[in-house]
Amino acid sequence: MVQEAFQDFYPDQSSHCFGCGRLNHHGLQIKSYWDGDESVAVFMPEPFHIGFPGYVYGGLIASLMDCHAIGTAAAATARSEGNDLSPSEPLGFVTASLNVNYLKPTPIGHPLTLRGTVTDLGERKVCVDVELSVNDLVCARGKVVAVKMPSAMMADAQG
Amino acid sequence: MVQEAFQDFYPDQSSHCFGCGRLNHHGLQIKSYWDGDESVAVFMPEPFHIGFPGYVYGGLIASLMDCHAIGTAAAATARSEGNDLSPSEPLGFVTASLNVNYLKPTPIGHPLTLRGTVTDLGERKVCVDVELSVNDLVCARGKVVAVKMPSAMMADAQG
Repeated sequence: MVQEAFQDFYPDQSSHCFGCGRLNHHGLQIKSYWDGDESVAVFMPEPFHIGFPGYVYGGLIASLMDCHAIGTAAAATARSEGNDLSPSEPLGFVTASLNVNYLKPTPIGHPLTLRGTVTDLGERKVCVDVELSVNDLVCARGKVVAVKMPSAMMADAQG
Repeated sequence: MVQEAFQDFYPDQSSHCFGCGRLNHHGLQIKSYWDGDESVAVFMPEPFHIGFPGYVYGGLIASLMDCHAIGTAAAATARSEGNDLSPSEPLGFVTASLNVNYLKPTPIGHPLTLRGTVTDLGERKVCVDVELSVNDLVCARGKVVAVKMPSAMMADAQG
């Protein structure tokens, strides 16, 4: 059985995100999964996703961390309630803050692995740490604070 | 006289960045300028640069802040030395950390204005605050720590 990604459970109207929306054909379409208590996503950058020749663009790293953490926040909330994510009962989160420390230049041409850990699981706020590595070399660490989507935005997203 | 952007002074080998490289035809190609002591960049997002329908993708905001701050760090360093940026004496900076606070959802369909302020100008480290607004409504604030590029990376970037 192939495990479905967190993002596969997002309702259609929440699936247009440039970073992780399966319906955004210009976007990155990242996919996040559980691996025990951690969440994991693997992304292969395009050759043009560079900051300097040979190295991954920092803005891409920030984008991947953002979407992976938002997916993790939703999946962790569902899991804490004894459920999986469900398109019929969407758990929409948005990013309140994103903090990335670039520890070393990230070489291009290899899959980027993101591992997320929930550090605080509140009713309206979830904090997620994300580590990005290439071939087990940790190149960047991020912290994301995710908050429940404002109701007006949720209405838009639900169509 | 049309003012040249900070990024127009980057040497060719430093101009492949997805966010601001004039030679990256898949990229965002942002342009930053002085406006007194502040730096300013204006970027028009594409319709697909959304997080949720109607709102700009947070990863794009992080990317724009990153490149605008890096350009500002280089330009401020040159200015402090009484010079403009020069392709023949490149001042390469990379991002050590990026911190973005998303204050409110950023509506899509309008130009995004980024204003940068240098808060600390050291020899190897420059700190830049960036504010992103839409029609004078501040939607996000960022803090970027830029550091001089590692010499190996600089050698790559100079070709």
